[in-house]
This record gives sequence, structure tokens and C-alpha cells, in this order.
Amino acid sequence: MCNNPKVAILMGSDSDLEIMKDAAKVLEEFGIGYEITIASAHRTTERLLEFAKGADKRGIEVIIAGAGGAAHAPGMAAAVTPLPVIGVPILAKSTAGLDSLLSIVQMPSGIPVATVAINGAANAGILAAEILGVKYPEIKEKILAYKQSLKEKVEKKAQALEQMGWAKYLAQKAAK
Amino acid sequence: MCNNPKVAILMGSDSDLEIMKDAAKVLEEFGIGYEITIASAHRTTERLLEFAKGADKRGIEVIIAGAGGAAHAPGMAAAVTPLPVIGVPILAKSTAGLDSLLSIVQMPSGIPVATVAINGAANAGILAAEILGVKYPEIKEKILAYKQSLKEKVEKKAQALEQMGWAKYLAQKAAK
Amino acid sequence: MCNNPKVAILMGSDSDLEIMKDAAKVLEEFGIGYEITIASAHRTTERLLEFAKGADKRGIEVIIAGAGGAAHAPGMAAAVTPLPVIGVPILAKSTAGLDSLLSIVQMPSGIPVATVAINGAANAGILAAEILGVKYPEIKEKILAYKQSLKEKVEKKAQALEQMGWAKYLAQKAAK
Amino acid sequence: MCNNPKVAILMGSDSDLEIMKDAAKVLEEFGIGYEITIASAHRTTERLLEFAKGADKRGIEVIIAGAGGAAHAPGMAAAVTPLPVIGVPILAKSTAGLDSLLSIVQMPSGIPVATVAINGAANAGILAAEILGVKYPEIKEKILAYKQSLKEKVEKKAQALEQMGWAKYLAQKAAK
Amino acid sequence: MCNNPKVAILMGSDSDLEIMKDAAKVLEEFGIGYEITIASAHRTTERLLEFAKGADKRGIEVIIAGAGGAAHAPGMAAAVTPLPVIGVPILAKSTAGLDSLLSIVQMPSGIPVATVAINGAANAGILAAEILGVKYPEIKEKILAYKQSLKEKVEKKAQALEQMGWAKYLAQKAAK
Amino acid sequence: MCNNPKVAILMGSDSDLEIMKDAAKVLEEFGIGYEITIASAHRTTERLLEFAKGADKRGIEVIIAGAGGAAHAPGMAAAVTPLPVIGVPILAKSTAGLDSLLSIVQMPSGIPVATVAINGAANAGILAAEILGVKYPEIKEKILAYKQSLKEKVEKKAQALEQMGWAKYLAQKAAK
Amino acid sequence: MCNNPKVAILMGSDSDLEIMKDAAKVLEEFGIGYEITIASAHRTTERLLEFAKGADKRGIEVIIAGAGGAAHAPGMAAAVTPLPVIGVPILAKSTAGLDSLLSIVQMPSGIPVATVAINGAANAGILAAEILGVKYPEIKEKILAYKQSLKEKVEKKAQALEQMGWAKYLAQKAAK
Amino acid sequence: MCNNPKVAILMGSDSDLEIMKDAAKVLEEFGIGYEITIASAHRTTERLLEFAKGADKRGIEVIIAGAGGAAHAPGMAAAVTPLPVIGVPILAKSTAGLDSLLSIVQMPSGIPVATVAINGAANAGILAAEILGVKYPEIKEKILAYKQSLKEKVEKKAQALEQMGWAKYLAQKAAK
Repeated sequence: MCNNPKVAILMGSDSDLEIMKDAAKVLEEFGIGYEITIASAHRTTERLLEFAKGADKRGIEVIIAGAGGAAHAPGMAAAVTPLPVIGVPILAKSTAGLDSLLSIVQMPSGIPVATVAINGAANAGILAAEILGVKYPEIKEKILAYKQSLKEKVEKKAQALEQMGWAKYLAQKAAK
Repeated sequence: MCNNPKVAILMGSDSDLEIMKDAAKVLEEFGIGYEITIASAHRTTERLLEFAKGADKRGIEVIIAGAGGAAHAPGMAAAVTPLPVIGVPILAKSTAGLDSLLSIVQMPSGIPVATVAINGAANAGILAAEILGVKYPEIKEKILAYKQSLKEKVEKKAQALEQMGWAKYLAQKAAK
Repeated sequence: MCNNPKVAILMGSDSDLEIMKDAAKVLEEFGIGYEITIASAHRTTERLLEFAKGADKRGIEVIIAGAGGAAHAPGMAAAVTPLPVIGVPILAKSTAGLDSLLSIVQMPSGIPVATVAINGAANAGILAAEILGVKYPEIKEKILAYKQSLKEKVEKKAQALEQMGWAKYLAQKAAK
Repeated sequence: MCNNPKVAILMGSDSDLEIMKDAAKVLEEFGIGYEITIASAHRTTERLLEFAKGADKRGIEVIIAGAGGAAHAPGMAAAVTPLPVIGVPILAKSTAGLDSLLSIVQMPSGIPVATVAINGAANAGILAAEILGVKYPEIKEKILAYKQSLKEKVEKKAQALEQMGWAKYLAQKAAK
Repeated sequence: MCNNPKVAILMGSDSDLEIMKDAAKVLEEFGIGYEITIASAHRTTERLLEFAKGADKRGIEVIIAGAGGAAHAPGMAAAVTPLPVIGVPILAKSTAGLDSLLSIVQMPSGIPVATVAINGAANAGILAAEILGVKYPEIKEKILAYKQSLKEKVEKKAQALEQMGWAKYLAQKAAK
Repeated sequence: MCNNPKVAILMGSDSDLEIMKDAAKVLEEFGIGYEITIASAHRTTERLLEFAKGADKRGIEVIIAGAGGAAHAPGMAAAVTPLPVIGVPILAKSTAGLDSLLSIVQMPSGIPVATVAINGAANAGILAAEILGVKYPEIKEKILAYKQSLKEKVEKKAQALEQMGWAKYLAQKAAK
Repeated sequence: MCNNPKVAILMGSDSDLEIMKDAAKVLEEFGIGYEITIASAHRTTERLLEFAKGADKRGIEVIIAGAGGAAHAPGMAAAVTPLPVIGVPILAKSTAGLDSLLSIVQMPSGIPVATVAINGAANAGILAAEILGVKYPEIKEKILAYKQSLKEKVEKKAQALEQMGWAKYLAQKAAK
Repeated sequence: MCNNPKVAILMGSDSDLEIMKDAAKVLEEFGIGYEITIASAHRTTERLLEFAKGADKRGIEVIIAGAGGAAHAPGMAAAVTPLPVIGVPILAKSTAGLDSLLSIVQMPSGIPVATVAINGAANAGILAAEILGVKYPEIKEKILAYKQSLKEKVEKKAQALEQMGWAKYLAQKAAK
């Protein structure tokens, strides 16, 4: 799968991997090749910039960057690439996630970061797929199928809840 | 330019147009055709959903949606299309913009919205161009040129400030 | 009880059921029939809209909708029904519940959602009863009795605390 | 119109009237009789409680209460009536409206307040109409008509924007 | 001690007692008589108001009221008494305590509540003692002694830390 | 009036005087003597501490301290006096007043500050009077009279609004 | 003065200059040479990094960086220099300044930014002087004199207020 | 090492030591002598002020002060010393750390505190070292080496992740 990666996933620290792996899993599900690495805006500035700057040339088409606190990696990657950059704010202990979110989303005019929900790495993977779907019809098809499967899962659960009532449903869920 | 629109810009209310026009202006600058309309998630639900659902078939490749307060238009558009949807939180009088921002960015797993800064409609336009740049090399070239021009503008101002000092610079700016 | 339901309870995900069941329990206590189902604004948009749009015709008189994060289900239900819609913001991990609350309460002019406290599903049930009490005197009577019982419970606890003092009261409570 | 009022509008201070009048205007539009008065939870506690407690007996069916800051009037009214109480948080100078909103919406279990958006008095009027619509079919009809008119206004604006483009539309709007 | 109580401690719910007992403990330490009870602004409105209104006549000189969420008990007590009322915001699960704090502190002009820190019931007890110390010199003496003891405790710990260094100090603390 | 001052009003900067004068005006209304001065915790630390430390000896019985931003004056005054200290958070340009409020109210165990609303200097004056009313029956009488007058003012306005309706009331208010 | 600059002042945009000039003014007052320029983390990444990286070699001893929104310039400068970096969060229209503040202050372990108040550019200048004062005794002397002058200004105002009373003081201030 | 301390670390309470020890550890790593003690702004005001005021004379060159809630120790230390003061906001149970952060960072003009991240004591140690590095070239060298080691650690982890993929990397990490 990693021959010919189209997406680069980077994160500021390996402590973000527990969250960021969700982006990788989604891309695997969609059969989209990806690179994954650690590149801190603050500890390995040059590494981050070279990684992001070279992405376009390497054939990468979308960058996903996750970071927490004063989260600069997504914005700095966006600064040096013409590719779309998706930012994932990582929840830390204080400020209830507002630090990561605001550090990523409030970018100045000229350099956008496509921000997803706090800890929303799975959605970053899906958004990357949607962006690639603009170019690759087969990926767009997979997104349509994925949305259909989401719908069916909800409908199945809805049916179960409607039939069982809430008490039995919760009991059954707890039993699993 | 509006023959063959690639981007659809929609907003919840015409009071958002003063902000949302910045997305249109950027797309015009990049020579990217766009549709622009009003479609409220709450007042014209069907219109919004049909507009968003049909976008892919009409040849639209990216949707930009702006909304304020309990801002549902971007998320609802995202729910019914496989296209990437960019959300622009519009600043209103209360909560300092947190209502629009959180209503747009905190999407559940499965349905991302690519959120930009509060009132960041220009960046929504640029992000749309970056997404299209994945498919259209000539747009990617324009983004590179645009980023270069941003850089040059800052450098020119920097040079002026360095030469004049702050007092003269501010005086000259005020005189304009 | 579910013959002739007057209230529809819907939630965006079955993970909300642990909270939303409190609305069902209150309605059961008041002897008010209800429907309960899952309908995500984002994953099952049409299902949600049809469910909400058809509620009035099915004889439903009040809708209760719970959702978390960028919580759109209550607002979208409200958009397509003339019935009063009660929104329950569900607390998630980040932003201390502000995301759900603001996404539900800050509705634009024209389409209100009657918002209750974060995780306040029991109160959603009571509010539904109060609304039905406008039409059905026997429900209004039950609300009066319910409020009386609340009062008596507090008074009994107050009496116990006054007699025992805080240390003994806490010890007895811990022993239970 | 004020013979046979069905809604009571109360506010904590006459400085809230500039906002709260929007509720009255909506009710007038819907032809629903209302009382309107000032009753501060803190300055005229008894007045507020008697007003709210007696509302049911007077034939009032819904109470709308607006207040700012540590906004207690809606909650205190709710404490002494079996009627549904709608709360309108009024925006003040500090905390960006969070004080009024949280003081009204975060009610304890047992005593809900149906909270609308900050400064959302018009929506309070509409919500009152929706609640009355459960009992009075002619009011429900008016809500359906009102929602239809909202939809048509948006569609008309949308058509104008689509035809004129944003620049001309904004110019024309500014000219009005 | 409870012959001749000077302070009334009230709380909205017995779930607040775990925090509010700290006020009682401080008053016991200072040898100040107190009443303690439960009186919810919303569930037992009359009880609360009578309790607060009658406090002055019963010889109570300061009221301490704790409440969480849309915390109205302190403000409602303040509305019906000429006595100083101290408010204790109780931390709940959502909004990180801002709901209780803002509901208590943001009182309108005319009816102050002397607000202490979130969960700061011990400080409420001390503030009550300081207020009583204005009238009773022996209580003021006790406050001076109490502050002296606080100082000595800190100084003793400081000395220990300076002598041991942080590693040994933490080890010793963990061992206790 | 300033012979025999019972209250000391201090503020961190003369830019706070526009707000803090409201405390002085209330005390004048109640006929309570006061001192008023400027003493910054940060710019004139010793002055502040001496002023606060000496207050008790000078016959001062309550201290009111107003400050904005990282508002330390109330807490530092409280640290060095056995008198009750009332804190007034002053609204500044950023953080919507949360900085001043939290800096004043979140005092550690042992050293309370009786915090009033953001910019609530009038309430600080009233709270000071209530505290003095514990000792001086004639001040308690004035508070009762003051609360009565508040009530009457609201009732008069309420009557006017009820008679005129909102449109005429607002017109008449605007005409004043 | 700009021969031999010890401090580099940089800002993300020339719109920050109105605030950032206060840092320059303080340094001028202290007779400390400085460079001042514009270097956006996002628009001129390389320029910013080279400027910050080369600062140490050029003889710069402290860097002051101001930025607004997703404010990355201070953190990115800190990433590439061993010099202390002072960050000035610039207030923008939304989020009440929390975006800039959190983006600057919440730096990850290893790369601190010495953050001052929102819009606190003057304090950034003073902090730079304090840092230089560690090395240069004559600058430490100037800080002591500056703090003395602050104290005297407050004392003079305090004396005026004490003598005139608040009404006359405010009138005189308004007359200036 | 504690002969000839250059840095003074102080904290408001020994409960802050678990966090503040990180500053001490960093200084030990850099071979920088330090004092460490407890000095509460509120409980031991004089002790704090004397400690801070005397620091310069004792040869201390940088002060680090940690505090939580209404965190006044850093600001009060800064008020009485010409030395640079670094503030560490300590996370407490409520307000998600905003109370400590805003109480420390929002200092008034004239008296800066160099604020680091919430619970960022390690960064306070590094910032102290950077400040000392302005004067002592050998400390600046150590900072350069420290930043190099940070970089290498990240690079090593990055390499491991790139080689193993996320699943194996996480498994290996969990196994440690």
C-alpha cells in the first residue's frame, strides 16, 4: 500500500500517535497509500519544513498534520507547500482543547489549514479521501460507499433500539 | 468565468455576504469558476440539501459554506455529498465567534468539514484552490505564484519598516 | 404505553442513549407514550428529516433531540416541523460541553430549539410534559404532583440534615 | 388582542425591552394575545413569583422570561409554575453572553427552562407559538405559513444573488 | 455551639454537602454557631425564601449559600434579606465550573452576592468570620490567629523543602 | 462624611475610577464615610500593603478593591488584613472580563475575597453596607429602605409598560 | 541607537505595528538598541527562520515577536535560536484574544516562549530590558529607576484623588 | 550545585511541587545552581516579598514562580525585583487552567511576568537557562546542545515509526 503514497501524515510527537493512527486506519480502509512520520515544528523545524516542502515533489497530494497545545505543525506545513493541509487538534490536559483548536484553525489570510474536530483524526483521513476523490473517481466511489455503510450501521442500530426499547438495548450493549 | 463552475459558495443568509464575498474574490483572482447562492440549513433545508446533493453531478468539485451562530449549513452540505466541504464560521455578536466555530468544526466521525478561521472566507477560497490544485496543475501553479506574491508583499513592507523606522512608517500608513 | 406516542425521542448516535434514556424514563413516569430512535443529522440525513417531517402527521406533538459536538440533529428537526423541538446537548471529551450547547441553542431567527442543560435529558422529558400539559389537563396535574414530590424529597433530606448535622448525614449517605 | 392573553412576557429590567419587544412583535404577527411586564427576580422577588405562580390560573399557557448576567428570572418563574417557561439570555458587556446563557440553560434536574439563543427574543415568540400550536390547530397553521414565508424570502434573495452576482447585490443592498 | 447560630449555611442539594461541609468545619474551628440546611431555589422556592427572609429575625447575621449549574440559591437569598450573602459556586461536570460561577457572581446592580472561588466553601466560612469580626472583636482575634497559623504552616513546609531538597521532600510526602 | 471613614476604596489605577466611583456614590447615598485612593499591587506594592494592613487600626471596617487584568490588589489586600475585602473585577479589552474575574475570585483556601460582578462597583458599595449593617442597625435599616426603593422603581416601570404597551414605552424612553 | 542592536522586534504583519511599536518605545526610553522588522511565520517562513536563526550571531540577545490569531511567529523563532524569545499575543476580532494567547503560551516542553499579556508590547520591551539587566548592570539600574518612576506617578495621582475626591478628579481628568 | 544559586524557584504551596520540580530538574541537567522554596503571596506575603526583593542582592539572576487559581505569586515577585520573573500557571480542578494562566499573564503595563504554558515548569527551567545564556556563554552552549538532543530524539522516534508502521510502533511502546 505504501508504494506510491498520496497522503503524508505527520504529528508533532509520538504521544499523538494514539489519536493520529485513526487517520492511517481510514486511509488503509480506503486503500490509499500514505507516509507517516513525526516532525515537530519546534524540535525539528527543518525536518518538518523539508518534509512538507518536498511532499509535492514526492508525489504526495494531501498532508495531514496533528499537534496539541500551541499546535504549529499544521500551519508551518501549510506555509511551505501548495498542497492542501488538514490539521488535527490534539486534546491535552488544560483549556479543554481550545489551545490546539485555535492554534490550528485561526490561520491568517493566505495560508489556510483545513481543520477538523479536536482529536478528529479519522475525519482527517476521510477529508483527505474526499480531496483525492476530486481527482480520482474510484476514491469518490469509495466515499459514497463508506457514507452508505455509515447510514446502514445507524439504521441497523435504530431498528434494534426501536424494537427492543432502551432498557433492553442498553443491557445488550453492556453485555458485549 | 461562470461557465463551468468548479466551486459552489453558499451561505445561510445574505447578511453573511459581506464576509463570504472574499471567497468569491479569491476564486476570481485564481480564474476559477464558481456558483454563489444563499441556502439556509434551517429556513430552506430542502434547497440546501438539493443544492449540495446535486453539486457533484453538476460538475462542482468543492463546496464552500459559511454560516454563523448554530452554524449547520456546512455540516449538512457535507452530509449529502462526497465532495470536500469547506466551512467558514461567521462572527456574530455573542460568544466571540465560538458558537459558529464549534458548530462547524466539531463534526462527528465520518462527516468532516474542512474548517477555516472565523470570518476566514478568503482562506476558504484559497483552500478550495489548493484542493483543485491536486487535480489541475495550472491551479497549483497559481497557488505557488500567489504564495510568492504574499511573500514579496511582506518583504517589501519589511524593507520599508526597516528603513523608515516605526514612527515614519506608521505616519506614512496613516497618511494613505 | 407506546400505543399512541405523543413524544418522539431521537438521538444522533447510540452512544447518546445512556444520557437520553433519562428523557424516556421521565415520560414513562408521567405515563406519556413516546417513540425512541436513532437518527443522525449527518449519517442519516434523510431518515432524520423524514422522521421529523412526518412526526406531526403521525400524531407526535413534541420532539426531543439529543446530540453532541457539532450537534445538528435538534436544529435540523426543528427546520422541518411545526412542532416544538427540545434539544439536549450531550457532553463530549473536549470544550467542556460548549460545542454541543452552542450548536443547539444559538439557532437563527425563525427556527427555535428549546434547549435544556448539557446532559439534561430528564429535563427534556419534563419540558415535553409541561408543553403537553398546555393541552392535556391531566398531564399538567402530574407535573404539579411531580414538583410537589421534588419539594417533599428536598424537605425530607433537609430535615435529616438539620437533625443529624453534616458529619452524621454524610456518614449515613456513604453507608448506603 | 390583549383580551385573553395566552403568553406572558416578563423581563428583569426595562433595559431588556429593546430585545424582548421582538417576542411581542412575533406574537402580534401570529395574532396571539400576550401580557408584557417587568419583574425582577432580585428586586421584586414576590412580584415575579406571584406573577408566575398566578399565570396558569389567569389563563396564561406559556411564559417567556428574559434576563441578563446572573439571569434568574426564567428559572425562578419555572420553579413556581407547571407551565412551560422559555428563557431568553440577554447579552451584556462582559463574558460575551456566556453569563446569561449558562445562568438560564444549566437548570437542575426537575425544573427545565426552554432556552433560546442569546438575544433570541423573536425565537422565544416563535417557540411559544409552536407550543400553543400543539393545542390550537390554527396557530400551527400560522407557523407552517410563517416557515413557508421564511423560505420564500431566502429563495428570493438567493435568486437575486445568483442573477446579479455578489458585487451588484451588495451595492444594491448598500443603496437601500 | 448551635445555640445561638450566627451563620446560616444552605445548599441547593445534598449532593453539595461534600463541598459545603468545609464551611461548617471552618465555623466550628472559629467557635461560631451555625445552622445548616438544604433549600433549593427551584425545588423548594418558598422554603428557601422563608428561610432567607426570616434569617435576620432569627438572629442570623451572615448567610452562606452554595449551588451548582444555573446556581440561583445565593442570588435569591440575597434578594430577600438585608444580610450579607456569600455564594459558593459548586463545580459540576460540564463548562469547567463557569456556569455556577457566572450564575452567582454576575448579579445585577442592587443585589450583590459575595462570591468565593469555585468549590471554595472553606473560604466562605472564613469570609463569614471576617464579616462577623467587624462586630465581634473576639472573632477578629481568631482570624488574626488563623492567618498566623496559615503562615506558620507554610513556613514550616518551606523550611523542610529548603533543607531536604525537592526529591526527598516529595518522597517523604508520598510516604505519609 | 469623611470624618470617621468606615470603608476604604482602593483601585489599581486611576483608569478604574470611572467604574469605582459607583462604590463611592452608593456609600454617600447610605451616609457611610469612606476613604478613596489608588494603590497598585504591582507599581506601589508597599503602599498597597501598608494601606491595607493599617486599615483595621485606622478604624476601617471593610475594604473595597477594584482591579483589571491580572487583578492582584484585592487578593493582596486580603492577605494582610483581618477585615473583609470586596473585589471588583474591571472589564478590559481582551478575554471579555474573565481575566479580572478569575484573578480575583479564585483565591486559595484561607484568604477569601468577596467578589462581585465584573464592573459591579455599585454592588461592592451595597455589599459593604450590608456587612456594616451586621454591626450598625441604622445601616441595616437603610439597606431595607434601599431594597424597598429598588422594588418600587421596578413596579412603577412595570405599571407604565403594562399600561402603555412596549411600543409607546420605548418611544417615551427614547424621547427622554 | 540602532548601532549595535541588542533586541530584535519582529511581527507577523504590519497591522501589528500599532501595538508592537510600544516595545520599541520602551527600548528607546531605556537606551537599548533594537532592530525592527516584519517576518510572517506563514507568508515568509524562511525569512523568519533566517532572521531568528542569525540573531545570535548578529549580536542580538533577546527576540520579541508579536502575532495574532494562530500566532506562530514567536514559537517558530524560539525553535531556531538559543536566545530567549518574548511573545506578544495581538488581539483580533474574534475569541477575545484567546487564540493569540493560547497559540503563543502553550508551547511544548523544550521550547519556551516568554509570553506577556494580550497586546502587552510595552511589557515585552520591559521584560527584554530585565533580561538584558542580568548581564548589563546599567540596564538593571534603569529598570530600578523606571519602577521607581511608575511608583511615583501612581503616588502623585493617589494624592490628587485623596485631596480632590473622585468627582473633582474625574472632572479635571475629563478637562485635559 | 547549590553553592552560588543563580535561579530562585518558588511556589505558592507544596501541592505545586509535583509540577514545579520539573524546573529544578532542568536546572540540574544544565548544571545551574538554584534555590527552591515555598512562599505564598497570600499566606506569607512578607516572606514572598522579602524573598523576591532580596534575590538580586543574594546573587539570584532569574526568579521562577509557580501558582494556581488566582495566582498572584509571580506578579507580586515581579513587582519588587528588577530581575526577570518567569511564571508557571498550575492547573487546578476548575476553569481548565484559565484562572492560573490569566492571573499570571495579563499583567499591567510596567510589570511583566514571562509566562510559560500551564504546568510548563520544565519550560520555565529552560527559559531561565536561555536568559542566563545571554550572560554566560557556557550556558548558551548547553542550550544549543539540549535543543540538538531534542531534535535527535524526535528523529530517532520518527525513524522507528517510519520503519515499523504505526501498529507495531504502538505495540512496542505499550510493551515498555
